[in-house]
Amino acid sequence: MRTISVERSGAFVEKFSLPPTSDGPLNGLHFAVKDLIDVAGHQTGCGNPTWLATHPPATVSAVCVEQLLAAGAACEGKTVTDELAFSLLGENYFYGTPLNPAAPDRVPGGSSSGSASAVACGLVDLALGTDSGGSVRVPASNCGIWGWRPTHGLVSIAGVTPLTPTFDTVGLLARNAVTLQRGARALLAADAKTPAAPGRVHLLADAFALADPDVREALNPVIERMKHTLGAELAEISLAELCHDAQAAELATWREIYLVLMAAEVASCHGAWIAAARPEFGPLASAGFEFVKNLDRTRVGETIARRQHYCRQLSRALGPRDLLCLPTAPTIAPLKESIGRDRNSGYYQRTLALTAIAGVGRLPQVSMPLATAAAAPIGLSLIGAPGEDLFLLDVARSIDQP
Amino acid sequence: MRTISVERSGAFVEKFSLPPTSDGPLNGLHFAVKDLIDVAGHQTGCGNPTWLATHPPATVSAVCVEQLLAAGAACEGKTVTDELAFSLLGENYFYGTPLNPAAPDRVPGGSSSGSASAVACGLVDLALGTDSGGSVRVPASNCGIWGWRPTHGLVSIAGVTPLTPTFDTVGLLARNAVTLQRGARALLAADAKTPAAPGRVHLLADAFALADPDVREALNPVIERMKHTLGAELAEISLAELCHDAQAAELATWREIYLVLMAAEVASCHGAWIAAARPEFGPLASAGFEFVKNLDRTRVGETIARRQHYCRQLSRALGPRDLLCLPTAPTIAPLKESIGRDRNSGYYQRTLALTAIAGVGRLPQVSMPLATAAAAPIGLSLIGAPGEDLFLLDVARSIDQP
Repeated sequence: MRTISVERSGAFVEKFSLPPTSDGPLNGLHFAVKDLIDVAGHQTGCGNPTWLATHPPATVSAVCVEQLLAAGAACEGKTVTDELAFSLLGENYFYGTPLNPAAPDRVPGGSSSGSASAVACGLVDLALGTDSGGSVRVPASNCGIWGWRPTHGLVSIAGVTPLTPTFDTVGLLARNAVTLQRGARALLAADAKTPAAPGRVHLLADAFALADPDVREALNPVIERMKHTLGAELAEISLAELCHDAQAAELATWREIYLVLMAAEVASCHGAWIAAARPEFGPLASAGFEFVKNLDRTRVGETIARRQHYCRQLSRALGPRDLLCLPTAPTIAPLKESIGRDRNSGYYQRTLALTAIAGVGRLPQVSMPLATAAAAPIGLSLIGAPGEDLFLLDVARSIDQP
Repeated sequence: MRTISVERSGAFVEKFSLPPTSDGPLNGLHFAVKDLIDVAGHQTGCGNPTWLATHPPATVSAVCVEQLLAAGAACEGKTVTDELAFSLLGENYFYGTPLNPAAPDRVPGGSSSGSASAVACGLVDLALGTDSGGSVRVPASNCGIWGWRPTHGLVSIAGVTPLTPTFDTVGLLARNAVTLQRGARALLAADAKTPAAPGRVHLLADAFALADPDVREALNPVIERMKHTLGAELAEISLAELCHDAQAAELATWREIYLVLMAAEVASCHGAWIAAARPEFGPLASAGFEFVKNLDRTRVGETIARRQHYCRQLSRALGPRDLLCLPTAPTIAPLKESIGRDRNSGYYQRTLALTAIAGVGRLPQVSMPLATAAAAPIGLSLIGAPGEDLFLLDVARSIDQP
């Protein structure tokens, strides 16, 4: 794979080189850091110039950055993020749209846009991103690379600017599954495990039904091959069957849970700063914070109850070796500047309906770049049981290199 | 129980009345909020005047505050916290030492000092606190009230100033177990469950061995009574047996895991602000942040590995109806101003050795005010399996009212 220049990629807000702090299993690898995550001595800009101007430089690196440096990897700089991580597109009004080399006329996806671009352009082996509502998984799907969102709470978020703590995670992007697995082991502080065979693999019928027809067609043969590779029983199931709850069938229910809780928590995390600093936002971020402001907060209570219920039901339904299979996103990356400011647009509605499942369930998910539709990448995802990240990543590795 | 005046308690930094936002299961109850947690329109002072001066007022209330208001409870004000929640004593250099009405010459415990005092003084029915390394459980034990630290991640921490996200939780203090349970149900957004009988109740031999002899003697008859009440099998076990790991026997191992990860994360959460704002700290907080600054960060990686290992082993060892039983603290509340600035003093070392177990394991814990030693309260604690908070609280309720 040819490397694209740093300039052409537009992936970085700041390019520098930090050597590893010790030898380790990531020796020789290079990584980038989303500019929502602290690197000592550098300001964390969070994709917004007012944020940059009103926050001092980090005095220590985030724990996740130190973990990769201590495992032998070198840091290559900070990457573009959507403003305050609050978008799935990767079109930053102030810092531009990092290149999606797999589909240059399309967005890279966000909010870990620069991290995905840096990996896809061959500039680094892996990159740290954050994922609350899909910010690692969607860019991975759009750019044709591998992406991992961990079980909620398993990877330290100290030194990472919060958006919605109930959903916030630190994840990884990588060009192949082996590198993803190696990086994840460093973040999970866990040794390699003896590979285990998957139990039941549930194909989420409702999620496939939501996808574009050409996405479904592109993924069908991939699923057939996966059946052989894994030697596993693959059976269609609905979320309603899985959760023993008729309302769970509506993917809109999952999306609404995410949107209501996210908006409630974003207001707590950033409301006071917005009121005091009166930051300039680009049009997409403005629309996002307007959505937050207009939340009917009386819905939060019942929404938390529903979230806890679904989270428990999913955990009960998934044995430690069981997996859910679904498209990462319902569609390939949108064309640049094609999605307006409307968070109720079809694109957001449909994408969040799929990404909210792991979020609501606090479950780990890997997006695998196994297909293309209309000459653009589309990811197939596996979701694992809570805490079973190492198993999930090992299954992904076996699919990448059968 | 006689109510002590607000003035005499010294529990509040700000007294006000917020009516409930709707009717609910907490109708008629009054609660207080630790001044580390946002209440809309009020500044969150975090127990430090420089913090107060450098942060704008909250624009929305934290999700946990809204949950209690929506459940029918009224908010009575903000309570004293140790500076940035970084102490177990409850002696705030700037805002004073809230009264421990059960032992007026002794500290209330921290960092949720004012919340514990407000409950113990009869000023409110329940109070929100935070607990990273014992900040709800230790004040509950010291003041002779009930305290709950939830499973990590189950209660929203949006709108709560972070200290160490890997351990931070929002918990509750209450005068009796029924009120604790009612408040917890509101935060967990969960309905009452059919009571279930406990499975195995493991008495943590190493934890009891660490306690003062008079604490052990005071707790022995309580445990005998509990045996009858619960009709459960109670058997001594060591952490080494429970975790199948000889090193786990050393409670110092658990404390060190907490101290290293806490220090690493505190530096991320507050290091940049300290460097930029140069806050004035009291002597206890100064010593704490000095400890953070001197952390050997090369220890973080192996410490995370050990934490994940113990967390997994504890989760495997505990069935959903199993419980661990231990003293909340190894000693009754220290006399005021008796503990110096030395975080390596015996008091911190021994107390954190016990409180770190639930922290490292991400497990829920309830402290029950069931005994006194030397005329001061001492808590007996139960730790539950992850996510089994409702069951744990129901067991506590059945012990309070057999």
